Amino acid sequence: MPTISQRGVQMPSSPIRKLVPFAEAAKKKGIKVYHLNIGQPDIETPKPILDAVRHSDFKILEYSHSAGNESYRKKLVTYYNRFNIDVNHNQIIVTTGGSEAIIFAFMACLDPGDEIIVPEPFYANYNGFAVEAEVKIKTITSSIETGFALPAMTDFEKAITPRTKAIMICNPNNPTGYLYSQEEMEVLKQLCLKYNLFLFSDEAYREFCYSGSHFSAMNLEGMEENVILMDTISKRYSACGGRIGAFVTKNQSVLDAAMKLAQARLSPPSFAQIAGEAAVDLPADYFDGIKAEYQNRRDVLIAALNAIPGVFCPNPGGAFYAMARLPIDDSDKFCQWILESFSYEGQTVMMSPATGFYATPGLGKDEVRLAYVLNTDAIRHAMVCLEKALEAYPGRTSK
Amino acid sequence: MPTISQRGVQMPSSPIRKLVPFAEAAKKKGIKVYHLNIGQPDIETPKPILDAVRHSDFKILEYSHSAGNESYRKKLVTYYNRFNIDVNHNQIIVTTGGSEAIIFAFMACLDPGDEIIVPEPFYANYNGFAVEAEVKIKTITSSIETGFALPAMTDFEKAITPRTKAIMICNPNNPTGYLYSQEEMEVLKQLCLKYNLFLFSDEAYREFCYSGSHFSAMNLEGMEENVILMDTISKRYSACGGRIGAFVTKNQSVLDAAMKLAQARLSPPSFAQIAGEAAVDLPADYFDGIKAEYQNRRDVLIAALNAIPGVFCPNPGGAFYAMARLPIDDSDKFCQWILESFSYEGQTVMMSPATGFYATPGLGKDEVRLAYVLNTDAIRHAMVCLEKALEAYPGRTSK
Repeated sequence: MPTISQRGVQMPSSPIRKLVPFAEAAKKKGIKVYHLNIGQPDIETPKPILDAVRHSDFKILEYSHSAGNESYRKKLVTYYNRFNIDVNHNQIIVTTGGSEAIIFAFMACLDPGDEIIVPEPFYANYNGFAVEAEVKIKTITSSIETGFALPAMTDFEKAITPRTKAIMICNPNNPTGYLYSQEEMEVLKQLCLKYNLFLFSDEAYREFCYSGSHFSAMNLEGMEENVILMDTISKRYSACGGRIGAFVTKNQSVLDAAMKLAQARLSPPSFAQIAGEAAVDLPADYFDGIKAEYQNRRDVLIAALNAIPGVFCPNPGGAFYAMARLPIDDSDKFCQWILESFSYEGQTVMMSPATGFYATPGLGKDEVRLAYVLNTDAIRHAMVCLEKALEAYPGRTSK
Repeated sequence: MPTISQRGVQMPSSPIRKLVPFAEAAKKKGIKVYHLNIGQPDIETPKPILDAVRHSDFKILEYSHSAGNESYRKKLVTYYNRFNIDVNHNQIIVTTGGSEAIIFAFMACLDPGDEIIVPEPFYANYNGFAVEAEVKIKTITSSIETGFALPAMTDFEKAITPRTKAIMICNPNNPTGYLYSQEEMEVLKQLCLKYNLFLFSDEAYREFCYSGSHFSAMNLEGMEENVILMDTISKRYSACGGRIGAFVTKNQSVLDAAMKLAQARLSPPSFAQIAGEAAVDLPADYFDGIKAEYQNRRDVLIAALNAIPGVFCPNPGGAFYAMARLPIDDSDKFCQWILESFSYEGQTVMMSPATGFYATPGLGKDEVRLAYVLNTDAIRHAMVCLEKALEAYPGRTSK
């Protein structure tokens, strides 16, 4: 029998999905499970977006341009201009989700063995893309005590080697919700210019900023050749299944290389490009409503968490995630136990163990990520369950 | 300025798309261009498929399962059963186009430096995926004289090295239209079992067989652990823009590895999965009509080609491509010249130089690929243009 590749062996399993069987078993027992484990919002996709697809009248579902429909890319220029991001439609490649934008950046900029520095905790799927591209993610640790602020410039400098080609951030951050300040972005700029590095900036949650405003990597002056923006409509418009993202850069060599990657896979999905184009035309107040809803959820969640004895959760500035420290021995065990062996009034909670978001062994054992993608009633019920669970959990530590 | 990767440099440009500017310039001059250069059919996508999407009534465009919706995978089981391909829905991963199925196969089965043997001429984008995965495509040459039949077993054996991990075919073939016989498939089986190789079988054109019937690699007994089927709805249902394909295998280790790749990119596109599901329910006679149309186009095209002095084109058994030998010095020059410097009654033809489908330098210089994706009237006009062009072309050779 032929054997699979080492790459196939090394490819990490999703740290989030491994608990799914336990959630399914709980549901079979009749327990209601509050899903705070993944970033799939319960918010409805705006009707005009879905209607644009449903009312489309083409007769042939054709390939689009490999870079995406020109009409959509021109719309995206309008969208980015709203954030004072000055790009033209030839600097945008429409991708199959933000995921493909990340793969394009890794493939176009990095060779096997090259290194990317990423502050941890970080979005776990970056690991998978790194294995596919045979590149190495080197982490520097951000701390829950500072709310996961950017580590010091000296920490980055200690991690830089001759193989370092890029720094990668997610801003606002998944999994921490941390919103990088303009000052922190300027530190990244200094680093990238000093060490000749790319800055990969995943800005999927740009609109969801509650404390302070978003400063895009695209607005770092003098970084035009260094910055690659990875983007997606998934979270912004509750349109995760569309699989439409964007790869944006002003670096022409990178664009040319990414364009060849785009041509090899022919085109991004056509239906959802129609949705994406309609999304740019949503009324300006669309995000006000959504943002208020998420901010309210955040406020309810963070207050409830910090009211539980022994729990600490910094107040996240953006996105819809929070990382909380719990009085537990092992977050993997706890997140499984709460599904497998616990319920309160017929309910329980699914969370993501933070261990999956750290590369440094041992970190995240007393932290979990919670996605506030459910309404405030559900969040309140979930927090009651969590409090009761922490009281009952055999692996509870101190306090 | 940070520099792009060697991989980004090596990534091949699309040999088909490089002529696009010349076609656009011709159109600007008012010349009608017959597009026989790419596999984008002019046949309408079946209405029930598009209607399924247009009449969908979900409210949230959610992620699907990373392997694709279970309901769709179960439908695909029904589809494959029609070809006596006995699989269950857990042996199918829905992919973003056939392209992603190929990438998954390369990544799950091959490590950097590993080799795949592919009969040339072959689908040019395999080169791009090989560069992404850092694997090596080794070709053995099939000949226009035999209609591009499978090269001899000894040719394969000469190409096999300790790094060889797979043989890859496209059946029926793009770009040649050649339909592999059961006997030829048995030769591939012998090779794979003897040398412990994977067989990657791209069967995107399964339904379009005119001379003889299709024998799927999935039906090779004793090859359950070796065969990976790459599939797509693109050509079958004129649904190229959907970007829905499938990765199918009975090898559990390969499935597990591919599943991790699938999880990293979260899910395939949701809208087009609805289309794909509806496609399986199309009436049984759907393909009869489409097949008759393509067969008629083939007959018109091949007869017209072979009636042109100095031209030879074998009769392709399937797909909707033909490779023709022309009395020309250089197919790249000719395909550019016919767009740039020629027209007949205000019309000209766009074709793909065959050089892009060969890895061996120098091969394909007197061949072009023609996709019979246009109706017979258009094909007849295009062939008149081609005949006149060959008479006028300064680089015409003999005959």
